[in-house]
Amino acid sequence: MRTTIERRDLGARDVLIEITYAGICHSDIHTVRGDWGAVPYPLTVGHEIVGHVTEVGAEVTRHAVGDRVGVGCMVNSCRECENCRAGQEQYCLPGNVGTYASVDRDGTVTQGGYSTHIVVDQDFVLRVPDAIPHEAVAPLLCAGITTYSPLAHWNAGPGTKVAVVGMGGLGHMAVKIAVAMGAEVTVLSQTLGKKDDGLRFGAEHYHATSDPVTFEALANTFDLIINTVSAPIDVDAYLGLLRLDGTLVNVGAPPEPLPVRVFALFNNRRSFAGSSIGGIAETQQMLDFCAEHGIAPEVEVIGAEAVNDAYERVLSSDVRYRFVIDIDSLR
Amino acid sequence: MRTTIERRDLGARDVLIEITYAGICHSDIHTVRGDWGAVPYPLTVGHEIVGHVTEVGAEVTRHAVGDRVGVGCMVNSCRECENCRAGQEQYCLPGNVGTYASVDRDGTVTQGGYSTHIVVDQDFVLRVPDAIPHEAVAPLLCAGITTYSPLAHWNAGPGTKVAVVGMGGLGHMAVKIAVAMGAEVTVLSQTLGKKDDGLRFGAEHYHATSDPVTFEALANTFDLIINTVSAPIDVDAYLGLLRLDGTLVNVGAPPEPLPVRVFALFNNRRSFAGSSIGGIAETQQMLDFCAEHGIAPEVEVIGAEAVNDAYERVLSSDVRYRFVIDIDSLR
Repeated sequence: MRTTIERRDLGARDVLIEITYAGICHSDIHTVRGDWGAVPYPLTVGHEIVGHVTEVGAEVTRHAVGDRVGVGCMVNSCRECENCRAGQEQYCLPGNVGTYASVDRDGTVTQGGYSTHIVVDQDFVLRVPDAIPHEAVAPLLCAGITTYSPLAHWNAGPGTKVAVVGMGGLGHMAVKIAVAMGAEVTVLSQTLGKKDDGLRFGAEHYHATSDPVTFEALANTFDLIINTVSAPIDVDAYLGLLRLDGTLVNVGAPPEPLPVRVFALFNNRRSFAGSSIGGIAETQQMLDFCAEHGIAPEVEVIGAEAVNDAYERVLSSDVRYRFVIDIDSLR
Repeated sequence: MRTTIERRDLGARDVLIEITYAGICHSDIHTVRGDWGAVPYPLTVGHEIVGHVTEVGAEVTRHAVGDRVGVGCMVNSCRECENCRAGQEQYCLPGNVGTYASVDRDGTVTQGGYSTHIVVDQDFVLRVPDAIPHEAVAPLLCAGITTYSPLAHWNAGPGTKVAVVGMGGLGHMAVKIAVAMGAEVTVLSQTLGKKDDGLRFGAEHYHATSDPVTFEALANTFDLIINTVSAPIDVDAYLGLLRLDGTLVNVGAPPEPLPVRVFALFNNRRSFAGSSIGGIAETQQMLDFCAEHGIAPEVEVIGAEAVNDAYERVLSSDVRYRFVIDIDSLR
C-alpha cells in the first residue's frame, strides 16, 4: 500500500536523505505481520537504507550535500548510558530508537526506509565508500553489520574455524565477511542446494544439517558458529560442534525459549551468546572493510509494486540473497 | 560401609599417597545414589584428597617421599588431544580419567579418596604449599579449582563486578577467590541466612534471590556471574543481571535442559557458558594463589562413621561449608 508519511523538519544536527534503495529484511516481514507484537499502524518499514544527502542542518559537520550515505536499524540512542558511551549504541540501556516502529525524540513513531526521504541525526548516518556498488549498499546496513559485529567481536580471522548456519540474507554475508577476515569458513545449511554459491563466496566446506553425519563428523571443530536462522535450532547439537572455548552466537531471533543442556556447555568450556546489529562506529568500519575487500551482498532489485510478492519469496527462501527496492519506483 | 580396595602396584611414574583428609563433594552423593546414571559398584568415592607421599616410582621427578600433595577430580588423560596439549586436561577429548568411577589405563575402575592410600601418576598430583591449613586443603581440589578456573578465565579482578549464585561448598570458595582477585563481589543466595558469612568472606553485597526486587535492582550490573547451584535456575532472569559482554557461567550441573530466550542473550551481547574443574597446571596455580592470599575453605572435620549423616546434611544445606573426612578414622 502506498501512502504519504511526514518527516520532521530538519533540525540543526539533522541530515535530509533522498533514498535510492532500501533492502527487505526478514524483520520487516515479522513486524508488519505482527509476529513480534502489536504494531503502531500506519507504519512504513525498512532499515537498510542508502541514498544521498540533499540538505543538512546548521550544525552538521559529518556529512555534506551530495554525499552518499546509509542508515541502518537505529536512528538515535540515549548517548549517556555506559553502553552508548562505549560506542555500543545498539545496546543502549534505555533502548535505542529503531529506524521504524520506535518512539522518536519528538514523540512520533519512527518510519522506515521504504520511502523517498528520511531525516536522521548526523551521528546515525553512515558514510558509504565509493567502491561499493550502489544497489548493493543497503543490505550491509542490517545483514552486513549483524554478521560483521559478532565475527569481529569473537575474533574470526586467520587460524580460526568459523561455521555459518543458514545461507540466506545474513548467512551469505557472514560467509563473505568471515572469508575476508581470513577465517576457514564452513556453511551449515539444511540442504546442499546453495553449495555452489557458498563455495563461490569463499567457504571451504559446506554441509547439510539434515544429514546427522554432519554433527558427528564436525564434533569439536569450530571456534565460532554464527547462527543466522530465526527458527528454533537444536542448541545442544550445535554446541557439540565447538572446540575448546568455542562460542555459538545467535543473530537469528526465534521467539521461543531454546532448551540448553548445561553438560553441552561444560564440554570444551563452550558459550552460547547473542549479538544484535552493531554500534555506529563499528558499522562504519564494516562499510570500509567491505569496500576494501570488494565485498557486497548479492541482490535482486525490485520495484515497490513487487514488495508483497518479494515477502512471500523471502518466507519461502526463494531469494539469492537479498531483495532491494528501487525507490525511484515510488517517485 | 567399610571395605578393602586394591590399588595398582606402583608404576615407574606413579606416586603412592597416604591420605590424611578427603572432602565430601555433592558429586560424591549424586554418584553413589545413581543420580547421574549407573554406578560400577563396589565404588569408593571422593575426589578432594590430601596426604603425604610415602613411595615414588623410579622415574618420578616431580614429587618426593614426605611431600604434602593433593589429588583432585582426575587422575589421568590422553595427553595427546589438542585440549590436553593446551593444558586443559579436564576437557580431554577422549575423556579424562576421573578419580573414581572411571576406567583406568589398566582396565580397572578408579576408586576415590575415602580410603587410606591412593596410587596416582605424578603428573596428576599437586604440590600443596605449606601456608594452607592441612584439614582445609582437600576441598580446594574440587570446590576451589571449579570456581577459580572460570573466575580466572573470564578475568575477574579489579574493576569487575562478580556475582556468585549459591553459598554452599563451591559458592563460599568462589566468594573468597573472587575477592582475593580484586573483584567487587555480590552474593545471590536464596535467603539472607548466610549474609554475615558472605560479608566476612569479603563480599560487598548480599541479596536474596527469593526477593523479586533483587532482579530489578541489579539489572545490567555484573560482568560475570558464577552459578554454583545444581538445581535448575531461571537462566533468563540471571542473564538480565549481566552488563555489556557479561557472562553467566554454570559450574552447577542440573541434568534438566534449561530454557533460554535468545532475546535475553541479545541484550548487552550476553553469554551463557559452562566450566568444568580446571587443568592440572591451573590447579597448581590455584593452590599457590590460595596460599599466597591466605584463603582456605571453611570445613567441618568428621570421622568416617559420620559420612552418611554428613550426606543428609549436605543435601539439606546444613554445612558451613564443606565436610572433610579425617582418614585416620579409617585406620
